[in-house]
Amino acid sequence: MEYEEPKFFHVMQYGAAADRDVIDMVSGNPDWEPPGALREALAAYAEFPTAEFQYPPSEGIPALREAIAARRSVDDDRVVVTNGTGEANYLGMARALDRDAGDEVLLMDPVYPYYLGKTALLDGTPTLVPTERDGDLDVAAIREAASTETALIVLNTPNNPTGAVYDLEAIRAVVEIAASVDALVLVDEVYDHFDFSGTFESALAIDSDRVVVTSGFSKSMAITGFRVGYAVLPEPHVRAAKTRHMLVNVAGSRPAQHAVAEALQSTDAGYYRTARDQLAERIDAFTGALDAAGAEYSRPDGGFYVLARFDGFPGTMENVKRLIDEAGVAGMPGETFGTARDDWIRFALVTPRSLEAAERLADYFAETKATASR
Amino acid sequence: MEYEEPKFFHVMQYGAAADRDVIDMVSGNPDWEPPGALREALAAYAEFPTAEFQYPPSEGIPALREAIAARRSVDDDRVVVTNGTGEANYLGMARALDRDAGDEVLLMDPVYPYYLGKTALLDGTPTLVPTERDGDLDVAAIREAASTETALIVLNTPNNPTGAVYDLEAIRAVVEIAASVDALVLVDEVYDHFDFSGTFESALAIDSDRVVVTSGFSKSMAITGFRVGYAVLPEPHVRAAKTRHMLVNVAGSRPAQHAVAEALQSTDAGYYRTARDQLAERIDAFTGALDAAGAEYSRPDGGFYVLARFDGFPGTMENVKRLIDEAGVAGMPGETFGTARDDWIRFALVTPRSLEAAERLADYFAETKATASR
Repeated sequence: MEYEEPKFFHVMQYGAAADRDVIDMVSGNPDWEPPGALREALAAYAEFPTAEFQYPPSEGIPALREAIAARRSVDDDRVVVTNGTGEANYLGMARALDRDAGDEVLLMDPVYPYYLGKTALLDGTPTLVPTERDGDLDVAAIREAASTETALIVLNTPNNPTGAVYDLEAIRAVVEIAASVDALVLVDEVYDHFDFSGTFESALAIDSDRVVVTSGFSKSMAITGFRVGYAVLPEPHVRAAKTRHMLVNVAGSRPAQHAVAEALQSTDAGYYRTARDQLAERIDAFTGALDAAGAEYSRPDGGFYVLARFDGFPGTMENVKRLIDEAGVAGMPGETFGTARDDWIRFALVTPRSLEAAERLADYFAETKATASR
Repeated sequence: MEYEEPKFFHVMQYGAAADRDVIDMVSGNPDWEPPGALREALAAYAEFPTAEFQYPPSEGIPALREAIAARRSVDDDRVVVTNGTGEANYLGMARALDRDAGDEVLLMDPVYPYYLGKTALLDGTPTLVPTERDGDLDVAAIREAASTETALIVLNTPNNPTGAVYDLEAIRAVVEIAASVDALVLVDEVYDHFDFSGTFESALAIDSDRVVVTSGFSKSMAITGFRVGYAVLPEPHVRAAKTRHMLVNVAGSRPAQHAVAEALQSTDAGYYRTARDQLAERIDAFTGALDAAGAEYSRPDGGFYVLARFDGFPGTMENVKRLIDEAGVAGMPGETFGTARDDWIRFALVTPRSLEAAERLADYFAETKATASR
């Protein structure tokens, strides 16, 4: 996964350069408003004395760490505030691979491509493990794949791209498998505020020193550019993660940390519910139009994404570009998410034009079929 | 260099917990004002549309990269905006060690301790190379130390902790040595705006594909907590550094990048000159009082720091704590900067009380001497 071809940017640029109106459903950039308190806190920070502009504690400003620890019901000491969930995943994965407990990383297929890239960066060996057809964990397949070579099992719930929300008992079974082969389990919960099923439970509910949970505020507060995330590590692994964080980044950016800490304190449940409800409505509208078009799709239990499959139109980069040019809708090729969803295309529902996009797709495939049958 | 004992924090905490007034000269946190335009830009950003709160390009927002490239007279493509100079150094060092061109890192002694920590993190083998008594490069010693095992030579000019400003011809000689053993040279220029000698020249003036230059705005804009730095890499190494940056951090924090970009455009030379002149005055006052006390010290050609040596009082952690308790002045033990300045103590001139601190030191050592000779 080299910089020159990060496929997200490649597709977005192709869409932006197209000679027509294109509805961008490529990346998971929220299009809704951040909490009002976040804007206010950032404006207030601009007036702070210069001492507040200097190095924060490496592990994060106390107000933010304490708020995270309280929300997640863990000791402050276990929380490391990071430069987005991306860095949190990097720290957790590095820790698992630094333990001299194997170099294999089990990744669920379909897979968020950054996990593959980080595994390569950290000299780990990735193994893709199939999931159920609906995206749920296939615990038996994980058990079969796990061995003493396994250092880490990475889970993501609510899942990108499948929209699956994992059952806590399934995660618990995975943690037991990990314990039996001396591996860690990293659970990326960055979409935890976007659970439509009402069944999401954090892996922190599992009492185990094998579980690293990562998350962040990029999605829940609609601020992917602020880069504020965190890792909650088991006590024996906190020190090593903090050391790496300090040596790589020194600390995360303080204005962003301050704004998030204030927003965490002042934002009520209504803000999160409104964003979630809006996404649920878009999913209804989008999948309703796909139904009308006779397309197959995954209805997400959580997260931002719908995977759709169109007969005779596999999810290749070439076909995604064709949809941009001929239908005016930009998604992500399923082939960029491992091997399990090659036939599918992922659409991020981060645009108010989701219904219009689905109608464009329906029209396009109706016309294509009509042309083909002529 | 483990997190649990980052010595800077240890000394600062000891000083803060002391049962008396302590003048803090431990860390390099500027105590002066950031540019006014930076505050204004941050306040304005708080009102930006939500699209501006989302992922910036991984390599940095275009306005900032272009401003850096213009200032440093390099192609935009060679600039990667990082989470502070700390990440820039990490990326440059990682690139040198990833090339299969040896695993040895030559570090100048005395050494900024983060370079040692990063070398260990990246599985490199550090070799400390002595410098001249005044902190200047000892090119012959570097030549002697360099071998085919050498992957990287790290320089820092203006230097922390010695205050040396390296001669460009000496750096050029080091680059030639590096070329002869297939190594890279990383030059950390984060103190470039604090050159009192008028002789500083950036290593970017050397036309070589061996030179990585790192810097940032932490010191020049008095914003160590914002975490905005950059690396300028030779063209053949840009892609690998961007890939690592993307996989570790995705991108740097956007509000901070925006504020720095605006401040770079709107801040005139007077701002930087005022900060530099103030530091120069503090150095005069501080070293004047040390003169009066008969202490030996290094008068910096650049940077924030004065190294001082007091007879029969080596720069151990124990003695630094004694100065906190008995003289009310907190510095950094020379023994934390490698082996070459064990006898010395580093004082950061980032307090308006620099003169008072030197007077306290003079009084303390006069009294100690009087007591000893009684």
